[in-house]
Amino acid sequence: MKIVLIGYGAMNQRVARLAEEKGHEIVGVIVRDKSKDYPYPTYQHIADVKDAEVAIDFSNPELLLPLLEEDFTLPLVIATTGEKDTIINKLQDLSNRMPVFFSANMSYGVHALTKILEAAVPLLEDFDIELTEAHHNKKVDAPSGTLVKLYDVIESLRTQSTPVYDRHENNEKRTQDEIGVHSIRGGTIVGQHDILFAGTDETIEITHRAQSKDIFANGAIGAAEKLINKANDYYTFDNL
Amino acid sequence: MKIVLIGYGAMNQRVARLAEEKGHEIVGVIVRDKSKDYPYPTYQHIADVKDAEVAIDFSNPELLLPLLEEDFTLPLVIATTGEKDTIINKLQDLSNRMPVFFSANMSYGVHALTKILEAAVPLLEDFDIELTEAHHNKKVDAPSGTLVKLYDVIESLRTQSTPVYDRHENNEKRTQDEIGVHSIRGGTIVGQHDILFAGTDETIEITHRAQSKDIFANGAIGAAEKLINKANDYYTFDNL
Amino acid sequence: MKIVLIGYGAMNQRVARLAEEKGHEIVGVIVRDKSKDYPYPTYQHIADVKDAEVAIDFSNPELLLPLLEEDFTLPLVIATTGEKDTIINKLQDLSNRMPVFFSANMSYGVHALTKILEAAVPLLEDFDIELTEAHHNKKVDAPSGTLVKLYDVIESLRTQSTPVYDRHENNEKRTQDEIGVHSIRGGTIVGQHDILFAGTDETIEITHRAQSKDIFANGAIGAAEKLINKANDYYTFDNL
Amino acid sequence: MKIVLIGYGAMNQRVARLAEEKGHEIVGVIVRDKSKDYPYPTYQHIADVKDAEVAIDFSNPELLLPLLEEDFTLPLVIATTGEKDTIINKLQDLSNRMPVFFSANMSYGVHALTKILEAAVPLLEDFDIELTEAHHNKKVDAPSGTLVKLYDVIESLRTQSTPVYDRHENNEKRTQDEIGVHSIRGGTIVGQHDILFAGTDETIEITHRAQSKDIFANGAIGAAEKLINKANDYYTFDNL
Repeated sequence: MKIVLIGYGAMNQRVARLAEEKGHEIVGVIVRDKSKDYPYPTYQHIADVKDAEVAIDFSNPELLLPLLEEDFTLPLVIATTGEKDTIINKLQDLSNRMPVFFSANMSYGVHALTKILEAAVPLLEDFDIELTEAHHNKKVDAPSGTLVKLYDVIESLRTQSTPVYDRHENNEKRTQDEIGVHSIRGGTIVGQHDILFAGTDETIEITHRAQSKDIFANGAIGAAEKLINKANDYYTFDNL
Repeated sequence: MKIVLIGYGAMNQRVARLAEEKGHEIVGVIVRDKSKDYPYPTYQHIADVKDAEVAIDFSNPELLLPLLEEDFTLPLVIATTGEKDTIINKLQDLSNRMPVFFSANMSYGVHALTKILEAAVPLLEDFDIELTEAHHNKKVDAPSGTLVKLYDVIESLRTQSTPVYDRHENNEKRTQDEIGVHSIRGGTIVGQHDILFAGTDETIEITHRAQSKDIFANGAIGAAEKLINKANDYYTFDNL
Repeated sequence: MKIVLIGYGAMNQRVARLAEEKGHEIVGVIVRDKSKDYPYPTYQHIADVKDAEVAIDFSNPELLLPLLEEDFTLPLVIATTGEKDTIINKLQDLSNRMPVFFSANMSYGVHALTKILEAAVPLLEDFDIELTEAHHNKKVDAPSGTLVKLYDVIESLRTQSTPVYDRHENNEKRTQDEIGVHSIRGGTIVGQHDILFAGTDETIEITHRAQSKDIFANGAIGAAEKLINKANDYYTFDNL
Repeated sequence: MKIVLIGYGAMNQRVARLAEEKGHEIVGVIVRDKSKDYPYPTYQHIADVKDAEVAIDFSNPELLLPLLEEDFTLPLVIATTGEKDTIINKLQDLSNRMPVFFSANMSYGVHALTKILEAAVPLLEDFDIELTEAHHNKKVDAPSGTLVKLYDVIESLRTQSTPVYDRHENNEKRTQDEIGVHSIRGGTIVGQHDILFAGTDETIEITHRAQSKDIFANGAIGAAEKLINKANDYYTFDNL
């Protein structure tokens, strides 16, 4: 697979390394700052990368959005976060003339976790739910974006849900609608997310552990591998 | 809810205690050995227990099967193990004239676990699966019946699966079809079952923990509470 | 072992049941409200229970403290919480004429956990520490008394420690002195305590799980079994 | 710190990268095959690397042992496995004229785990012990070397211990001396080791998780940082 990378930050550098290990070829990178040295030919327009079979984007709206206005046809795997609605609208337009894949979280495992959660919540109506995530000690925001995504899945199925972040001062019994949210920080933990269902004399716990940020790069490469054989359409992990 | 118990062994003694705590009433027990003292009126025929609204059975084929041949109409919750096919056939006949619920494992959480597993396995095709169960140090059989049930769910979805019980002598790489099966024994652990999906740089783990055998009694009571409002039919956890 | 129980609330009822299962004998209970029915002879003074070999107390300062002023000689296992300093002072006086055991938490496993923690903290100086406890959904206080005890052990070894109960609004990096404290509530969880040490690319986690409140009753019985063979002195789990 | 690397395989390549990230300098590598390209000056004798302050070895007896016969003085951090007794004897001789550190497992966390285990086992005499390790699906040997090390620690404290690798055919109760040994294989798991102590109604579990092989490289760098300030002697993690 011949890949053009949109952006060459930390994530697309991982994509390059992992794609090459899998036998793919990076035929170019599209970057704004051309003063730096890059290990691949640099381009400014997708249409200029003649032999590319797919584009993988881990960039930002400033770089990506103008590119999407240009005239080109190439399967697109897009992972830019920010200006989500604008990007999705534009990609859905483009999906008439090429297959397009979009996900704000390229980890396939996290996607699978949300689908498993969608199956579990209706089965476990009488169980209390508590969410815990753990990340490295340099992460400043809490809870993690992925935990918020898991919470949203639960709230869409239990509409009375309300998050509780701190119990150490409210000396009251837990209500059924509470969803405890716990953010653990320490060391270099890449990312762990845990959903606890606690019922009468039994619990079910679902845990996702990420070992490396490679999961995001590999998720994008895996999506690209499937996308190049697909008909023109707008894809997510749900229908790829 | 007025309940007649079929059998009065360890499990139905729990049913009696927990049902009363919930405000239900035990109106009789059907037992074979009437020489013992029982805290409830004893009967030999279901039809004799005039005011019962439902029967809960944790007994054995010797006691249960003759009863099922008698003439009576009462919602039935049946948990006897052994002679499974005979019992299911008979119960399906009876379900024309009363609602009947059957499960060889009355824990609702274990049932939910199997349904979650059915959702997870197709999502995680590229992940290796390993199964681990833990029970108290007096349990003689291994792996547990519940683990076998979980394995069967996986095998029905990954038909090439093959269980591996011991790796310490076969110095070979794991094959994709292997499913490691691990039986931990120690202390008074009531029951823990764990399904590990291990992929590239990420894992998803689903764990069920039982804290007390009450889950089986409560599962039967919960099934009875629903069953008494149902139309005549044969029910399991799948359609209750 | 012939045991007199001081108090006959939920915990000493468990002690009675478990002690009898182990072959011990309950020779009397000391209670204030004598209008109720008890399955054992009732007494008002320890000295009146002629054949007792040991007393096990799960009561309260109102019942216990006056008893300790009386004239008697009997090995004592004391688990009353409240008025801790007064009780300990009195017990240390009494330990001249009988062996006395005191612990505010009769679970031997929790005691062992604190000792393991004392070994672990100095070994893992560069690791961040996070504490998590989980209990049933009816528990009103948070964090649990046992978690506070674990925190105190850590603080005595890392004197700069400061607890953090909620991270969802302070968008700042974790400092080294922070100890995250997380209280999970749900279902009927008896009690789980977890100490996470998170370092560079590795973590060590120590978890205690209680399956039943029997651990407190068994802890007291086990202490009594050892105490009756000891010389007069004041004992805790540290020197028993 | 100016470091000379003995060997330049996968582990010392990690050492080079991580040491440079920490501000240290690699002043040379000692290798046998000089036909390859190396990013650092190559040497054949330790004494030739004039400005080195410490040597870090991840090599093999063939490369290391002849070097140790040469005339030189330099703090040594040695991680070669194989011919362990010969190497330790030689290093103890050399420790008269330079500080020497040796460990067959350079992960500080694994070392700490063994020390925590030494504290825990005597505290938990009545608890059953089970050991579980998990590694990636390409690992051919089982159980892991680290698990064997943990087992040896336990056996030194419970001399009647006997390992059990497979329970699925022996329908017998667990004996007290049994130590279950479980090897999980799947995905790219770097390494997880778990010691379960299971008692009456409570368990204590101690788990080490490695996220990256960097822990071995970082362990060696950390040992080197301490060693260069030490007096001549033979050091391990126990006395560094």
